[in-house]
Amino acid sequence: MQKKGKLVSFRPDIKIVDCTIRDGGLVNNFFFTDEFVKDLYQTNIKSGVDYMEFGYKASKEQFDVSQFGKWKFCNDDDIRAIVGDNDTGLKISVMADVGRTDFRTDIIDKANSPIDMIRVATYINTIPSAIEMVEYCNAKGYETAINIMAVSKSNDMDLDDALELIGRSCVDNIYIVDSYGSLYPEQIRRLASKYLEIADKYDKRIGIHAHNNQQLAFANTIEALTMGVSYLDSTVSSMGRGAGNCATELLIGFLKNPKYHLSPILSFIEKHIVPLRKDGLLWGYDIPYLLTGRLNQHPRDAIQFTNEHRTDYKTFYHFLYDKDC
Amino acid sequence: MQKKGKLVSFRPDIKIVDCTIRDGGLVNNFFFTDEFVKDLYQTNIKSGVDYMEFGYKASKEQFDVSQFGKWKFCNDDDIRAIVGDNDTGLKISVMADVGRTDFRTDIIDKANSPIDMIRVATYINTIPSAIEMVEYCNAKGYETAINIMAVSKSNDMDLDDALELIGRSCVDNIYIVDSYGSLYPEQIRRLASKYLEIADKYDKRIGIHAHNNQQLAFANTIEALTMGVSYLDSTVSSMGRGAGNCATELLIGFLKNPKYHLSPILSFIEKHIVPLRKDGLLWGYDIPYLLTGRLNQHPRDAIQFTNEHRTDYKTFYHFLYDKDC
Repeated sequence: MQKKGKLVSFRPDIKIVDCTIRDGGLVNNFFFTDEFVKDLYQTNIKSGVDYMEFGYKASKEQFDVSQFGKWKFCNDDDIRAIVGDNDTGLKISVMADVGRTDFRTDIIDKANSPIDMIRVATYINTIPSAIEMVEYCNAKGYETAINIMAVSKSNDMDLDDALELIGRSCVDNIYIVDSYGSLYPEQIRRLASKYLEIADKYDKRIGIHAHNNQQLAFANTIEALTMGVSYLDSTVSSMGRGAGNCATELLIGFLKNPKYHLSPILSFIEKHIVPLRKDGLLWGYDIPYLLTGRLNQHPRDAIQFTNEHRTDYKTFYHFLYDKDC
Repeated sequence: MQKKGKLVSFRPDIKIVDCTIRDGGLVNNFFFTDEFVKDLYQTNIKSGVDYMEFGYKASKEQFDVSQFGKWKFCNDDDIRAIVGDNDTGLKISVMADVGRTDFRTDIIDKANSPIDMIRVATYINTIPSAIEMVEYCNAKGYETAINIMAVSKSNDMDLDDALELIGRSCVDNIYIVDSYGSLYPEQIRRLASKYLEIADKYDKRIGIHAHNNQQLAFANTIEALTMGVSYLDSTVSSMGRGAGNCATELLIGFLKNPKYHLSPILSFIEKHIVPLRKDGLLWGYDIPYLLTGRLNQHPRDAIQFTNEHRTDYKTFYHFLYDKDC
């Protein structure tokens, strides 16, 4: 497989997409203080991050707004209260789940919105609905992405069909998403190669969203990058569901483009992440996540195990193992 | 670069070398309880681990024995008190640092010792002394290894010369050692390729000892493995100096050889590692280690920073950065 870029060079097509609020919101039900979000916005600008994802555009019909912080819904006005007219180089992204977004009412013309990119999250069996959403958002003027979740559960033939379908749509970016953190670098390279073929054929960009169940989120991200993947999801201190994501501080440490700066991220961690951890918010690599990742399972059991402060790892492993039998 | 082995196959030449006591001893000055060491020995047998490294053969002239636990010195009698005649498939290893071992007095005939392998740790400028030690140990009947530490600080030409010299010696195994946890998978693959050329030429085996400063210890280990490296160092729960090592539980999760079993390791973690952490022993990936790793520096400043429970990461980063200028 041909490699793109060397360790001392940099590719201007690389984009860091900060998902701290969106994936980290799955840890605290999106209850971030405004100060946290405003400081993160300023941090991303200073550190050269390319996109900041504010959260989900979740349906207010389906979800009780009193049970979640505002970033599960990402009203345009709430984003504007943080970014004003966003007269910066940082672009704004939101995620919309297939079947969980009232996109025809909640996603307005881009001309009137602070949002730049809509990323549609879909499982492989709902790709046609994802494409419908993407066509709608594209017509409204947004950059779009389709994130095929849990790709480690898909078989090659279905994935090939899905990628062809997506390739022919108007979507701009297609994402490799290792939802369960179960993929090894070798598998990521194989997937990257497959996605990049579609990208070449249909003029798309490829992204990666990794999870850290096996301490491979960073490694998988830079391996995908080396193959030619250009949209790189990361979160500050890996904050995200379960084992969390590729850490922005690791990624910026690796990237050679002088536009990226590590210091602002370190300051943000001191000020905002250290207190969150002290308050008992739990995320990041731990044995239970290794076990669900290794078994290619959803992390929900591991999240519960961790939140209950259990340490009977062997019992838990056999419980998970038996589920697959 | 040709790859050896696929994800569903296994190579019988693979050896897991458990370094929990030896590298973990750098965290607690080798003060492990006998119960810990005995249980680890039994755990390694049950889980199929190939070698257990008990510690260092440090000079009792140079080091005050009252300041360290016994595994800094690894008297043969102390090992025998744990393993008896070691009538098992698990082999016993110790490490000897160049210039810090009274090898002519402390390393006796293999026929009278429970030890199977002596690993000589050396910097690149003391290779001739390392070879002298290896020739001595080989004549005494031991399997031997040379671990070239801090290879990330060596230039290619010196390393080529060193490998040629080592290749022509009687040593059995040669180790890639990323002491500072600063190497990326791409660099590890390049190094593995270089070491494996020497291995092919002189009939040696290649090993890898990784550190987790950038959450790459596991990734680098399996990438080296895929290239053909066969001696894989790991520690339970990454226990080791600073950011620690490749975790045995991650490595066993990856390896497909049915001789390896994860459950005993999980039980050991429940019983012995959870209490160590509760008692406040600190090791494992954290921001300060990422920073020394990224800057290719010895972790000592990061260890001190972490032990002082500091979180002024930005100040620390600039302190480290200025040291290199």
